[in-house]
Amino acid sequence: MTRTLALLLAAATLHTIPANAQTPPAAAPQAYSPLFAGEVERARRDVEASIKAGINVPVPKDPGGGFTHEQHKRNYRVIFEGGQLFRMTGDTRYRDHVRDMLLAYADLYPGLGPHPAKANQTAGRLFWQSLNDSVFLVNAVQGYAEIRASLSAADRQRIDDRVIRPMAHFLSDGSPEVIDRIHNHATWAAAGVGLSGYLLGDRDLVDKALLGLDKSGKAGFLRQLDLLFSPDGYYAEGPYYQRYALQPFVVLAAAIAANDPDRRIFEYRDGIVLKAIRTAIDVTHDGFFLPINDAMPDKSLRTEELYHAVAIAYGATKDPAFLSIAEWQGRTVLTPAGQAMAADLAAGKAKPWPFGSRLLSDGPDGKQGALVLLRTKPDPSGPLLVAKNTVQGMGHGHFDRLGWLYYDETGAVVTDYGAARFLNVEAKQGGRYLPENDSWASATIAHNTLIVDEQSHFGGDWKAGEKAGTRQLAASLDGPTRYAIGAIDSAYKDVAFRRALLLVEVGGLANPLVLDILHPTGSGRHRYDLPLHFSGHIIDSDIAFERKLAERPVLGTANGYQHLWVDGEGSKAGKARLTWMQGSRFYSYHMLPPAGARFIVAESGANDPDFNLRREPVVIQRVDGAGDATFVSLLEPHGAYDASAETVVASSARVTGLEHRREAGADVVLVTLVDGRRIAIAVADDVAAGAKHSVTIDGCTLAWTGPVGRLDLAKTGAKQ
Amino acid sequence: MTRTLALLLAAATLHTIPANAQTPPAAAPQAYSPLFAGEVERARRDVEASIKAGINVPVPKDPGGGFTHEQHKRNYRVIFEGGQLFRMTGDTRYRDHVRDMLLAYADLYPGLGPHPAKANQTAGRLFWQSLNDSVFLVNAVQGYAEIRASLSAADRQRIDDRVIRPMAHFLSDGSPEVIDRIHNHATWAAAGVGLSGYLLGDRDLVDKALLGLDKSGKAGFLRQLDLLFSPDGYYAEGPYYQRYALQPFVVLAAAIAANDPDRRIFEYRDGIVLKAIRTAIDVTHDGFFLPINDAMPDKSLRTEELYHAVAIAYGATKDPAFLSIAEWQGRTVLTPAGQAMAADLAAGKAKPWPFGSRLLSDGPDGKQGALVLLRTKPDPSGPLLVAKNTVQGMGHGHFDRLGWLYYDETGAVVTDYGAARFLNVEAKQGGRYLPENDSWASATIAHNTLIVDEQSHFGGDWKAGEKAGTRQLAASLDGPTRYAIGAIDSAYKDVAFRRALLLVEVGGLANPLVLDILHPTGSGRHRYDLPLHFSGHIIDSDIAFERKLAERPVLGTANGYQHLWVDGEGSKAGKARLTWMQGSRFYSYHMLPPAGARFIVAESGANDPDFNLRREPVVIQRVDGAGDATFVSLLEPHGAYDASAETVVASSARVTGLEHRREAGADVVLVTLVDGRRIAIAVADDVAAGAKHSVTIDGCTLAWTGPVGRLDLAKTGAKQ
Repeated sequence: MTRTLALLLAAATLHTIPANAQTPPAAAPQAYSPLFAGEVERARRDVEASIKAGINVPVPKDPGGGFTHEQHKRNYRVIFEGGQLFRMTGDTRYRDHVRDMLLAYADLYPGLGPHPAKANQTAGRLFWQSLNDSVFLVNAVQGYAEIRASLSAADRQRIDDRVIRPMAHFLSDGSPEVIDRIHNHATWAAAGVGLSGYLLGDRDLVDKALLGLDKSGKAGFLRQLDLLFSPDGYYAEGPYYQRYALQPFVVLAAAIAANDPDRRIFEYRDGIVLKAIRTAIDVTHDGFFLPINDAMPDKSLRTEELYHAVAIAYGATKDPAFLSIAEWQGRTVLTPAGQAMAADLAAGKAKPWPFGSRLLSDGPDGKQGALVLLRTKPDPSGPLLVAKNTVQGMGHGHFDRLGWLYYDETGAVVTDYGAARFLNVEAKQGGRYLPENDSWASATIAHNTLIVDEQSHFGGDWKAGEKAGTRQLAASLDGPTRYAIGAIDSAYKDVAFRRALLLVEVGGLANPLVLDILHPTGSGRHRYDLPLHFSGHIIDSDIAFERKLAERPVLGTANGYQHLWVDGEGSKAGKARLTWMQGSRFYSYHMLPPAGARFIVAESGANDPDFNLRREPVVIQRVDGAGDATFVSLLEPHGAYDASAETVVASSARVTGLEHRREAGADVVLVTLVDGRRIAIAVADDVAAGAKHSVTIDGCTLAWTGPVGRLDLAKTGAKQ
Repeated sequence: MTRTLALLLAAATLHTIPANAQTPPAAAPQAYSPLFAGEVERARRDVEASIKAGINVPVPKDPGGGFTHEQHKRNYRVIFEGGQLFRMTGDTRYRDHVRDMLLAYADLYPGLGPHPAKANQTAGRLFWQSLNDSVFLVNAVQGYAEIRASLSAADRQRIDDRVIRPMAHFLSDGSPEVIDRIHNHATWAAAGVGLSGYLLGDRDLVDKALLGLDKSGKAGFLRQLDLLFSPDGYYAEGPYYQRYALQPFVVLAAAIAANDPDRRIFEYRDGIVLKAIRTAIDVTHDGFFLPINDAMPDKSLRTEELYHAVAIAYGATKDPAFLSIAEWQGRTVLTPAGQAMAADLAAGKAKPWPFGSRLLSDGPDGKQGALVLLRTKPDPSGPLLVAKNTVQGMGHGHFDRLGWLYYDETGAVVTDYGAARFLNVEAKQGGRYLPENDSWASATIAHNTLIVDEQSHFGGDWKAGEKAGTRQLAASLDGPTRYAIGAIDSAYKDVAFRRALLLVEVGGLANPLVLDILHPTGSGRHRYDLPLHFSGHIIDSDIAFERKLAERPVLGTANGYQHLWVDGEGSKAGKARLTWMQGSRFYSYHMLPPAGARFIVAESGANDPDFNLRREPVVIQRVDGAGDATFVSLLEPHGAYDASAETVVASSARVTGLEHRREAGADVVLVTLVDGRRIAIAVADDVAAGAKHSVTIDGCTLAWTGPVGRLDLAKTGAKQ
């Protein structure tokens, strides 16, 4: 085995592989730590089943979820696993099976044209989109690397020349429209091409992967590292694609570290690869990725990509917090990096992951906005307020600037629909994004932010959105009054808006409150809609809704409004409340919209001919004919329901009052609790950190420095 | 401590309590097994918190879920726990707190009239319904019993005369309309009165509890044991109330065993008390009670009632299967029975509970019908077909004769709405049953059985239903073709119907199929509706639905139909299919209704002014102008979706054909699989076990004895 091969899989800090690869030692299974032993056993089952079933390399035919699609996926997995098993055990049955499978691909591959089920995406050869071909190559190269040196020269030549090299050529020179983009598909292509280059000793392929087809550095892996992540390691398309993109980044980075150590790839751009891994872990709740932009909500840290990322990051840093993530994953990768990490986990070295509040700057320069995560405790399933003050996120971005989400111990409370898609389910358009992904899931009305005149932000044109960032004005990540303030004036031609989202801890309340102060300012008269999508069953409201009981109309005709069934509409002077229940907890949403506002309760699912949409509730605050306006809203989690013990506590809200006053240069919100206490929160127009402000509230002076001040008033009005 | 007191809590087979109760030994905490230690710790926290908070015995005011309601519940728990802690530790602080609390009740109780928040149910004194007063007394007596002997004569007299005795009198002579019924409320009252009688040495109270107010035996506990359970220990109201009713049955039975050992209460009626406990465990899936009739779907074996039942049953039988239930519960009771069981669990004596198929006869004589449970494996969360061929179940019974449910590893698949109620949630009518419980949840259309002319069974009159049983014709609990056949001719004046539900295991299919053959026979022309309520997201269908895309009408005007929004209607010749996805699995429902049938997809939630209903999908097979008819339906679970690995297998159905032939004296159904195999199932009209039948299918002879025959045909038509 040549040095190139041996190092392909080993991160720089890991041990190297025995030199005599043709007869690798038969590892003693009992030497594996439990996590790794599980992987070996799983791989054995897969590969033995594949050996028993025989080689099956079908002519490509089906889209995602179909038989040929799944079979080629199974095959690259077997190539990967079989190669690793051969390295570890020296059992030539594994080598021979991988070899025979690759030889079958050598028969098939050179004759393939564009996949017959190609759709909107760039067609692959083996798969309906070339992205899957890249994934195939990344996996196949890693398996093939482990058996290549022990093959006959003829077999090696045949596989090199009829599988690896043509695949690499197809994904590089053959697909400039893919590999030269700044996009996760390009990263997968670069990883496949780069790994192939290292394996074949083909510098040309490596350079094209790292620097773009013209080797200028204007495209390629390094440029992707420059442009796809913010300085905080946040990936522009959002957590779901951050997860997806990570695997090729970390696998190619590990190969670069091993083969081109002088590049010091893990230190590149202030350690951007490791930052990206840490940030990927941070953008989760209870282990599940926040489903902003196009995203499936069932994706968690328990995915192949993160097994690779965690193992490689642990190898590069030895940070014991990664071990607790591996423990939650319950899985690792079959590589030396996975083996070493599993051993340290078994040795009891794990430390909890320090989940905390984070301001993740967005954009390559970190100045195009931010994703702000506010947490009150390090518990992975504790309260989490997400302010989406980010960039557009390219074609997978949704039109939800200044939107927000809320999670706590009951799961997603204030929700994001995610993507309209049934991944790999053939009957749902082959598992592709569905038409409702555009017509509903990405529309502004499907999110928790301002809609002006029933139009999505940027007119629903993501390329227009891509030109404009969001202004992340201020944030505070600590203390009892955490907050994020953002603004945007480009989402609508005539209307700018600014929003302060605050996570407010109050003595005596078991759960924090979320305060939302939203300010549209605009010329002309507009309809403003402010939706809140939530998860749970409505308990009651103090709004007298005119209910649509026996015939259910649709809210509008376009821009997502056509997908909302109306359940009721009503109005109420002053603060209005809607209470729902989810799991063991109650949530009261207190609303203080501009005067004359109406409240609409609706549900997604209208105009959905193929039953593609989930049906989820939303409450909308609507005001017509408005210019400058203020929406003040407060989410109050409260109470507990215990089905087992048949007890209920605090099923009614503790917040009884919500007032808004416009003082000189500041918004002052007064929250009154059932016990008579009041909390005054002031948000200054001037967000400068050093600016001093002062307002008088019921004879008390609230003076503060910076954007946000707070004063807790006892029942008598005296300062506490 | 007198013998009466000591034995009140100890089941006959358990050790007795040290005689010198005034100074019980301080038990060493480390001597407790983990399960019991947890209970002691929990009780300590409760009681210490109550001591710290001070006595709070409020004047009754609130309905379920309100403050005074919850406070009196907390109090009886503290009385129970404080008494047990005093027994175990001898710490007089516990005794004194329980004493002081009971003395506070002695001040309050004698002056109370009917509860101000009384509703439809019989009013209590401390609670809005007297049922809760019974529960209070059952708990309070058990706590008081542990401190009574060590009180001053004056305190004892005051509590005896102003709390226990007047409560017992209120629940016996003061409430004949409760205690003399044959109903779970009467059992709770009998338990409170009986325990009080044993404690006070008052034979009159004991006899009234056991034999009814007139002591004739026509009412009272023993008569309840005769009439409320079937010979198989199935409780007429269904699993939810079986659970609820169990606690007073087992607690009073244990007290009778201790105080009146000659009654041999655990052998009474062939061991009906223990049968009832075993059956309660059997009528669960994944630990949750099947939510037939009025039932909350979140009730599991993890409830107070079952902690008592399991501890007492284990004490009485030493059957180690009870220990595995206790292990799943993770809880037990603070009594000697709980302590002894926890010790055996800690000693590793647990054996798995043998979940299996069961025919639970219904009615006091076991001849009024049956609940049939068909399982293919002992896994508590494995496949489970439930055929509800039961009696009405009194006022909590639903109108769903011959209905069915299906559960498997993904949870409830073919569903029952359960009750329309938010237990103890004050904003939802004080936690009581909601109007939609009558208008929707109990209506026939809300269930998976035949509706004739849009009328519920028995015209929706449960008293009419109570007069008529269901005929349980035949069942087979084992083998690859398990089944239950039932019939009823009293649900409708003009239409009788018979139904065969079969759980069919097929080689090569990972999951069993459910075959349903439903035969209405009637005079005149009728509308037949056959709904299937399911859980999951619709994937696709081969029915061309005319969709209600932009305005959603309601299906009907009464009998539950007014609560269904229509999503679409369509028709198709021959077999039709609807496929949905739940969790990681796909489900295809294949329908072969009478010619001319239409298919309606709808959802619950219409005409629901207070947002009281959950929104759940249903597909309805509808035929108009029919007399005799046959509906053949097949539920096929298939495939797997793995979000983590991004793999999908078998998302399309394996069943491609469903044919029905009427042969001489039998229905023959042919199921064709995608690989060409066919399974012929024949169900004879004559259900006699010894009857011989024969039909010819494609040249093959299917001969069988008894109600059901089966022939598996290979692709060529040859017999396998």
